[in-house]
This record gives sequence, C-alpha cells and structure tokens, in this order.
Amino acid sequence: MSELKQTLNIAMIGHGFIGKVHSNAFHQVGHFFQTPFQPRLKVVCGRDREKLEAVASQWGWEEIATPIAIAAAAAGKIVLCEKPLAMSLDEAERMAAAVRQVPNLVWFNYRRVPAVAFAKTLLSEGRVGQIFHYRALYLNQSGSNPTKASGWRYQRAVAGSGTTGDLLSHSVDLALDLNGKITELMAMTKTFVPARDVDDAVVVMARFANGSIGSFEASRFAPGSRNRNSFEINGSQGMLRFNLENLNNLEIFDATEPANLQGIRNLLVTGPNHPYAENFWKPGHIIGYEHTFIATLGDFLGTLARTETFHPNFEDALAVQRVLDAIQRSADSKSWLTLEV
Amino acid sequence: MSELKQTLNIAMIGHGFIGKVHSNAFHQVGHFFQTPFQPRLKVVCGRDREKLEAVASQWGWEEIATPIAIAAAAAGKIVLCEKPLAMSLDEAERMAAAVRQVPNLVWFNYRRVPAVAFAKTLLSEGRVGQIFHYRALYLNQSGSNPTKASGWRYQRAVAGSGTTGDLLSHSVDLALDLNGKITELMAMTKTFVPARDVDDAVVVMARFANGSIGSFEASRFAPGSRNRNSFEINGSQGMLRFNLENLNNLEIFDATEPANLQGIRNLLVTGPNHPYAENFWKPGHIIGYEHTFIATLGDFLGTLARTETFHPNFEDALAVQRVLDAIQRSADSKSWLTLEV
Amino acid sequence: MSELKQTLNIAMIGHGFIGKVHSNAFHQVGHFFQTPFQPRLKVVCGRDREKLEAVASQWGWEEIATPIAIAAAAAGKIVLCEKPLAMSLDEAERMAAAVRQVPNLVWFNYRRVPAVAFAKTLLSEGRVGQIFHYRALYLNQSGSNPTKASGWRYQRAVAGSGTTGDLLSHSVDLALDLNGKITELMAMTKTFVPARDVDDAVVVMARFANGSIGSFEASRFAPGSRNRNSFEINGSQGMLRFNLENLNNLEIFDATEPANLQGIRNLLVTGPNHPYAENFWKPGHIIGYEHTFIATLGDFLGTLARTETFHPNFEDALAVQRVLDAIQRSADSKSWLTLEV
Amino acid sequence: MSELKQTLNIAMIGHGFIGKVHSNAFHQVGHFFQTPFQPRLKVVCGRDREKLEAVASQWGWEEIATPIAIAAAAAGKIVLCEKPLAMSLDEAERMAAAVRQVPNLVWFNYRRVPAVAFAKTLLSEGRVGQIFHYRALYLNQSGSNPTKASGWRYQRAVAGSGTTGDLLSHSVDLALDLNGKITELMAMTKTFVPARDVDDAVVVMARFANGSIGSFEASRFAPGSRNRNSFEINGSQGMLRFNLENLNNLEIFDATEPANLQGIRNLLVTGPNHPYAENFWKPGHIIGYEHTFIATLGDFLGTLARTETFHPNFEDALAVQRVLDAIQRSADSKSWLTLEV
Repeated sequence: MSELKQTLNIAMIGHGFIGKVHSNAFHQVGHFFQTPFQPRLKVVCGRDREKLEAVASQWGWEEIATPIAIAAAAAGKIVLCEKPLAMSLDEAERMAAAVRQVPNLVWFNYRRVPAVAFAKTLLSEGRVGQIFHYRALYLNQSGSNPTKASGWRYQRAVAGSGTTGDLLSHSVDLALDLNGKITELMAMTKTFVPARDVDDAVVVMARFANGSIGSFEASRFAPGSRNRNSFEINGSQGMLRFNLENLNNLEIFDATEPANLQGIRNLLVTGPNHPYAENFWKPGHIIGYEHTFIATLGDFLGTLARTETFHPNFEDALAVQRVLDAIQRSADSKSWLTLEV
Repeated sequence: MSELKQTLNIAMIGHGFIGKVHSNAFHQVGHFFQTPFQPRLKVVCGRDREKLEAVASQWGWEEIATPIAIAAAAAGKIVLCEKPLAMSLDEAERMAAAVRQVPNLVWFNYRRVPAVAFAKTLLSEGRVGQIFHYRALYLNQSGSNPTKASGWRYQRAVAGSGTTGDLLSHSVDLALDLNGKITELMAMTKTFVPARDVDDAVVVMARFANGSIGSFEASRFAPGSRNRNSFEINGSQGMLRFNLENLNNLEIFDATEPANLQGIRNLLVTGPNHPYAENFWKPGHIIGYEHTFIATLGDFLGTLARTETFHPNFEDALAVQRVLDAIQRSADSKSWLTLEV
Repeated sequence: MSELKQTLNIAMIGHGFIGKVHSNAFHQVGHFFQTPFQPRLKVVCGRDREKLEAVASQWGWEEIATPIAIAAAAAGKIVLCEKPLAMSLDEAERMAAAVRQVPNLVWFNYRRVPAVAFAKTLLSEGRVGQIFHYRALYLNQSGSNPTKASGWRYQRAVAGSGTTGDLLSHSVDLALDLNGKITELMAMTKTFVPARDVDDAVVVMARFANGSIGSFEASRFAPGSRNRNSFEINGSQGMLRFNLENLNNLEIFDATEPANLQGIRNLLVTGPNHPYAENFWKPGHIIGYEHTFIATLGDFLGTLARTETFHPNFEDALAVQRVLDAIQRSADSKSWLTLEV
Repeated sequence: MSELKQTLNIAMIGHGFIGKVHSNAFHQVGHFFQTPFQPRLKVVCGRDREKLEAVASQWGWEEIATPIAIAAAAAGKIVLCEKPLAMSLDEAERMAAAVRQVPNLVWFNYRRVPAVAFAKTLLSEGRVGQIFHYRALYLNQSGSNPTKASGWRYQRAVAGSGTTGDLLSHSVDLALDLNGKITELMAMTKTFVPARDVDDAVVVMARFANGSIGSFEASRFAPGSRNRNSFEINGSQGMLRFNLENLNNLEIFDATEPANLQGIRNLLVTGPNHPYAENFWKPGHIIGYEHTFIATLGDFLGTLARTETFHPNFEDALAVQRVLDAIQRSADSKSWLTLEV
C-alpha cells in the first residue's frame, strides 16, 4: 500500500554499533513520520565481509560493498555522515565543500531528543531570559580501565582525537545550537593512561557571543556516569537542565513565579504538546536512544520533500570542527584563542 | 538474505494505540532477537475500515478484515492477546480453555522491562531475603478531567471494569510473577465522576502465600503521575523499587552491607549483564516503552522455536483475572475474600 | 538583658532520646521566636537516677525527680505531652478531660515542618482543588532485625501497640490536619517476628468526609527507609508530596499550567515566604529534625502569650487515638468500621 | 551542675546572619559534645549599637563593644575567624603570623558536614582509588537581580572580591582538604552587572599534585540553585558526590562491584557509624546548616582540651587565600599560573 512513495536507495558505510542504529532508523522512520519517501536498504559498505553479511542478514540490506563519503557525494548522492565530521579541520572543510550541492546531514542526533528540542523552543520563546551560564558535561566510564589502551579510539593516528571528538563534539554542537557562537575559549586536556596518545579528558572555559560564559567537560574516566551528556543553562528568568541518561526528562526552573513556589520542575517530555510527541507513543510512554535517529531522519526526509536545507548538516558540523580545532590548539599552547564569528 | 526463515502470518485484531505498538514489535523483533521466524503482517482486523486502511498503509499490513480471538484459536492458530484477558472470569476461563492446544501469549509486557526482569533475577537469587512487603501503585491522571465521562473506558458494559482492569491488572500480574500467590484480599473502589459506572480508583490490601503482606493502589485520578506503574519490595536483606516512568532504572538497597555504606542505589539497567542488554543498545543507551513488546515477542518466538511453553500465557492471565474478580467482589461486599491457591 | 521575660518553670517527664529533643527546644525557642516567656529547665523526672543526672548535667536541668502528667495537670500546670497520648482510648479520654482547663500541647511535631505547614497553606488556598487521594507511608527498618524481640517497643503490655502507635499515629495526625475527618476505615496488621505481640506493620484503607479516599501504611520492616514519613495528595488541580527524610523539600504539581510545562516541582522550603523561614536561617540553609520541636514550642508560647488555644492539643490527640483505636478493632475483626464525625 | 567546667569568655566580632549562627553554636556545643569548657557569651562587637543590643538580647550576650581580630590575638586570646580570611594575600599572611602562638580556627564549617567528613574517610581508606577528576560548583541566585548593585558584597573596595571570596573560597578549602594541593590553575571571571566591580561568576581549571584535574565554578547568577555547594570526585574505583542543599546525603558509586549491580547510591549520613552521628540525633533524623558550626566548635574545643592543633586554622585559610589570589591574577592576566607546593 506504499506504491505511491518514492524509493530512496540507501548506501551505508560502516556496520558497527552505530550502523545498527542507522539501519533501525531507516526501517522505522516511515512508521512514525509521514513522508513521501521509502528508504530501501540497498547496500552496506565496510571492510569486514563476514560482519557485513551478518548485518545485512539481520537488518535486511540487499547488498554489501566498500566506498567512501566524498566519492559518493561527487556522484550527486545525498550524504548522511556520522560525527565528528573529520579527523582534522582541513579534511572537514574539504568534505563540506564536496557536499555543498547535495542534500546532506551529520548525525548530531541529540538535537532531536524531544527534551532538547523542547529546551530550544523554550529558549527561543525567551523564557530563560538573558543567558548567564552554559554548562555542559559529557561523562562516561568507558576509558577508565587502563588495561584497554589499544583500541582504535585510543590511537590519535586513527581516531583523530579522543574524548574531544568522541564526546565533547556532541556537547559543542548542542551549545552552538542552543546558545549561539563561541567567541573565545581556553582548554585543558589530560591523558591518564600513558600508553595512549589521545585526550582521556578535556575541560574548556568559553565566552559566547551573547554575553554568557560557558564551561565544558568531557571524560571517559568518570565512574558513576554511563552516558551523562548533560547541560544546564542559567538565565535571568530561569534554568534548563538535561541529562541523556534520563533523555525523556527536562528540568526547568521559572524564576518569574512567586518566590515561595519556585522549584526545579521535572518535565516528562512525552507529550502532550512536546516535540515529536505526536510521532511516537502516548504521554507517559517513554522513548529510547534510537528514536533520536528516527526523528532526525524523519525531519531530514521532510526537508528533502520540501527541498529545504536541513540542520545539522556538513556546514554545521564544520562549525563544530572549528571549535574542536581551537580546543586542541588552546590545550597545546596553553593560551586563550579567539574564534572568528 | 532471510530466505531460510519460516514465515509467520500475523492476523492482528484491533488497530488503536496498542495495535501500533504491536505492529512495531512484529517489524522489529528480528532486528534485535535471533529467531528462525519471519513475521508477515498479513491482516489487521477491526470495525472501522478507514482507520484500518490508514494503519495498514503506515505499518505495512497486507490486508484488512474482522475476526475474533476464540474463533482464530479454534482453527489452530497461535494467539497473542492483549490484557486484561476478558471482561469476566467466566469469559476468561472459556478463552483459556479454547487456546490450551496452541501456543499463546498475553501481553503483560512489563515483565520484560529489563529492570523488572532483573528484579526477578535478584529475587530468585535470594538477594532480598524473606519478603515482608509488596507495595504497588499504578497511577495516571487520564481520568481526572470529569468532562470526559463518555469514552468506552468509562462504561462498565463495554470496558468490563475501569482502573482495575486497565491499570491494576498490570500490577497484579507483576505481583504474582515476582512475589507468588495471593491468599487473601480486601478491596475498596471509588468512582469520582457520577456519570461513570466504572471504578476510577481501587485500593487493595492482601496477604501472600510467602508470608508477606501487600498493598495495591491504582487510579486515573492522580495528577502528577503520567504512567506511574511502580512497585517496592522490602525484605530482610534489602529492597527493590521500580517505576515505569523511569523504566531503564531499578533502585536497590542491600541491607547486608556495612551500615554506614547502605543506601538506595540507582541502577541503569542497560547492561552489561542485564536482561536484554545484548539485544538492544550499548550500556548507557536507554530503551523505550516499545522495547518491552519487542522483548516479549522475541522471547515468545524463542519458545515457539524450542516448542516450550511461554509465560505470561492465557493461564497466567486467567490467574490475574481470578484476582481481579475477587477484588471486584470484595469491594462490592466490603469483606475479605480467600483465594484458592 | 532578658529581665522583662516571664519565667516558665519546666518539669519534663522522661529523659531518653525524645527528652534530649525537648531539652533542646526549651533552650532554643527564644533564639528563633520572639516570646515574652523564658523557659527555665527546672526539673527532669524519671525512674533512673543515674541517667537523669547525666541528662541534667548536659542540658542544664536544675533538679531531678519523678511525677506524672495527670497529677501535674490537676495542679493547674501547663502540660506538654509526647504522642501517642495513651495506650488506650479510655486512658486518652481521661487525660484529655484532665487537662481541659489548662494550656496543653501534644508533640505531633511534624505539623510544624515548614514544608508540611506550607502544604497546609496551599491546600487551604484551594490550589490542589477537589481532593481525590490521600496516601501516607511511614516506613523505617528499625524492627527488621528479628533478634531484637525484647525491647519495650515490642511488648504490647508496655507499648500499647507497635507500629500503629509509634509511627502511624504521626501519619494519622497529619491526615486529619491536612485532609479532615475519616468516616470509615478498614485495617490489616501483621507481626513478622513470632516472639513479639505488637503489630510490626499496619495497612489501612479509608474514606474521608471530603469525598477522597485514603491509604496508609506503616512498617518497621522496610529496609531502604530510615525515617520515611511521607504523604502524597492528589487533587483535581494538582499534587503535593512530602518525605521526612528530605524535610526541607516539598514536591508540588500544578495541573492548571499548560500541559507541556507541567512537571513535579521540588521546592526547597527555606524561604522566602515560607512558614518559619523568618525564624530560622536564610533561604537555601536547611534545618533539621529538632527545629520542628522548636517551631512547635515557639507557636505554643505564642498562643500562651495571646491566651489562645494551641493545636495540636490533647483534644486533637484524642481524635487521633479514636482513629488508632478503630484501626486496631478493624484489624482484629477484619471488618470495616464507621467513625463518628 | 556544670560547675567543674572551665569558662571560655567569648568575644564575637560581627552580628549579622553569621553572628547569629555562631551565637547558636556557642550555646549548643555543650549539648552535643562532651567538653570541659563552658562558653560564656561575654561580648559581641560591631559598629551598630542598636543591632548589637538586639542580638545581645535575643542570644544572651552580656555586653556589647568594638575590637578587631589582630588586636585580640596580640593579647593572647584564642581567635575564631570567619572566611575568607582577608581581602588580600598580604593581609592574610599578616593575620596568620599574628595568631601563630594562640589556638585559632577559621570557619570553613563545611568540612564538618557529616557527609563531607564521611567522604574524607572514604577517600582516606582508598575506596575511590586513583583520583581522576575533582569537580566543584558553588551556585546560588543571590546576585541575579541586577537592581541590587549597591550592597557591600558588590563593591570590591569593601568585599575584596565577589563570588570568588564569598563562595569559591569554600569550594577551594574543601578541594585542598579532600584532594590535596593544586599545582597549576587557569581562571576566568565575569561581571554581569555593569554597576558592580566584583566578579559575579568565576570558572577555574586546575591540576592537582596527585595527578587529577579539577574544574571549579561559582556564581551568584544561577537561578535554580539556592545554595548548591557541590562536588563530585571520580576515581579508578568509584565516585563521590555531595550537594549542600541536601547536606544529609552523600552519593557514592563503587566501581569494584559486579557491573550489573553498580549504581549511584544515596547515603543518608545520619548514622550509624557516620561522623557526628553520635553527637546529634538518631539515624534518619536529619540535621541542618547550623550543626556544621556546632560540630566545628565541638572539635575545636576538643583540640583545645587536648592542646592539639585544630584544622582548618589560619594556616589552612592562608593556603586557600593563596589559591584565591592566583585565581584573581590568572583571570586578570589570562594565563596559567603555577603554585608553590
């Protein structure tokens, strides 16, 4: 009964954990979003034939193969790319240039957590007032076993960076999206395990164009946190707070209420009248990690149908990469850096 | 690449909110569970042709039609049925008898919340010791708008009961599964909106066969709760606590630790070594409401492949129905009732 | 510089944990409340001379001795009495009659937790709307060591009752104060340790005069709780929730706000504009258990100065005793009981 | 009955909010701590005669007058001083030198929060393992009303500094006490209200001698926080977390437990076997802000009786002042500063 839909032939490069997440999103997007497109899982690409076949079998990919993103774009294909965009600023700039003519997306999926999207709505409506503080943490404990020094994530030559690219990139994307441009920053990195040459942890202090100040911290050495991608925003009229470990919740504080009724309020952002609430289940029925990818894809297909520009795209990811690059340079030089605005 | 799988032709009766949930589970089970079966969404059945066609289009059902569960079972089909099983104990007994010869399932899906399944593991290992208290709440605020007196959920002739069948049935199923049989109970019901003839709220006190005492409360008149299906179990060695609004979490208390280190511990039940953690995402990446249906279906297909009996099935649902029936009779007669064990 | 104050000579009967609490309140009340009275710790009374002398030394009591409440009142003294008032309803009635002519107080101190007093204010202002549910727990784990069967608290002949008088009495007093009279109730008690003859746990279901229904549970067999004296009130316009383990906080839910901004709000009830906030510290500086006694005494001295009637007094405690008595009789007879309103 | 105690004549300089706190501690210390000393509230000193008389009347000070700390010490008196010690490092050094020969104390009272003292015990026992991160916040919303630009706290000439001295000084004292010396730091300050010339907020990144990295942030512009003096410590074996707004709680995470049982545990640090639990109430009966002063004084009198050195004293406060001074210089020069260790 979907014969009127236009088929989108999908080629996916990569087949690990995140490839599973994307396969799921391609399958599910049509169930939750009205779209004129029908994704067809055409080909999954990678280096390991055996694993490719297993993924293809479990998730219904028709073929297996091995290409790369820039080549694909050169041929006029739509490009959806994981974050961080690249291992260096140069490479990121070349990639962004390469895809400029085609619809493109970078999977900064956390913008589409309903609670995060609702935070953006509240900020846009001015409910937090003049922003004073933007405070972000992205903590997990994945790296704190020092005997695991040898994975690709711990080799700078392969991974580009450590915690900065892997975790902090998400925090930076959300900060730019929610609080605008960063004008100046100062960073410190730390490698706890001698056998590694990537940053195990990173701390950043920043000034934003809107007059607020920011502090960021990311670490793989934070037992007690599994996936604590969190932010807190203080403004003249209130506060917003989010933690990915409870991704269905948003904490808000309204400083304009009578003083004796002010308190931190825990919203369950599952509707009614919340972003994506109509797409998924009923109020009180929570969603999971994967739905952030489905919502991202749903919105992307919507912009595709309306021939609009989607965000976050390669340009947005390039802006993130510029901040990550400045963080690395600041940490190396132990000095403040100014960013072009 | 799934040509070796055996097709299961699915006929689904009903197409509302919960039909969407089931459609999703049939699509997704093969992505997360290894199974020799391939569900084929053959026919969706109901009374409203227009809605049926919309559901069929969005979720990929091949045909639309109108049958019933008992008739289907009579023809030797596998039967998966929503809860509560029936509007009366008599009806439930006839249904259970009708399906005795075929594989069958009742969607008490909350047994497969990973946190709930892990609670059962901990109980089975004796980690809570001798059980003293089983305390359950199922609260939402869906009914507290008194102007909505006319929906089918508020008519006893259509719905059978109100909060008892709709909400408390889930609590009773979990109680029987986690804490064993109820030997005696006393119930009180309350209808807040005069135009309704179903119970808007119900309170139950009970004694269990294992010597513990139980208290249950369900209400659609509890602003502050969206979907608070919660339980707390106190035993000689500790405590377990769960709330569906945070379904990825289980709170535990270990009374065997040194006194100064005892505290309520908040587990994020997303692995490693938690039920279903291998099926879904990585530790720290939470799942949503729908995954409880996928996990239920995954396990069901597993028992089907191994020709084992699945739980919860119609017999389990019949046991729940016996408790619900006693609750209704106790509330009506204002007296304690003894249950056959 | 306090020569203008009128001295109140205090005779305190009892010198255990709670005697220490009261000694503290007599010392502290003048520091936090403006009052024309100066308590003078004149005599502490009890059976154990050695302990009396230690208490007198540490807390500054001038003399030690041995009297009783009724006798004291007969002589026209002001009487401040711990809860529960008595071991039986008869005794409670005689005590209430004896003190009718003198200023009197019963230490149901939790009414003066600022968060509880603020809850009462919000209820009085109608902010919760029509009340549907009153739900109270008082849980600790003090009794769950079955080897401690022999303390006085576990002997009915000495203690009158177990958990009912010790813990549930507080919950009943708060319920009557916050939600009005109980018209009907049904109770279940349980003794887990064979060597004890008091109730280790008690569950009560009730109907209130205002049309709401109530559920109560108290237990000394609830590992995970140290002092969980909690209540939750659901009404047509919102919810209030309190837990003594976080006594500086009150959780509120306002169902009249826009649906997408509704959430449970955590108030830190330390001012501004909260009860007793002016008496104690600055906003954000929390108080402890003892301040509930100081606030109770402060208000009592205020009524004394203005020759007004203080609450809770012996009459209020007698009303609690009537409910406790009905609970005991209902549990014994396994039947619903109606209370005189 | 306290005739055997040695009288300590107290002269208190200052009579505002914190003077009330100290008056209370002098009254209460003997009730909760065994000590051979009897504080006598001899004289309260300050500039405003009317307010002095009111404080003297309410809290029982015998006389009123006007002296200063250094002069007092010169005469061989015991000196107890509020924090921060001074407005400049020079002044702090002179003060520390002046009191070197007499018993002295600085009111960094938060070391004696039972939960904080217990955190120190756990750290000392090595339960957190190798420390990776020390993360501290001290947030309130006291300054975010920009119309209040004129109080003494907002004038550098009077207050010395803003948030740094007022709030961050507490965080620095706890960091030095719990995690050892800071070797290097980089700071950023921000003034949000033009009419003020003190720092409204401060952010610091630091390296500790033990190889861990630190991040600090303090602000009076953080609506949502009333008194959030918090820290989180991540180490190879676990995590500790504290927040003064819930000062009776300590959150701990034990990374040495089986992975599926790891979770953040919420300890109610009210005994048994917790610091100061024997001095105050029973387990489950919480204490408030003022008890941190009573406990500090109790310990001080203990060292006085045993002629031991008390901590935190003027030398400890001088170490804090050195860090605060470096923070100010780093923020002014926008450069990293190395501290003498």
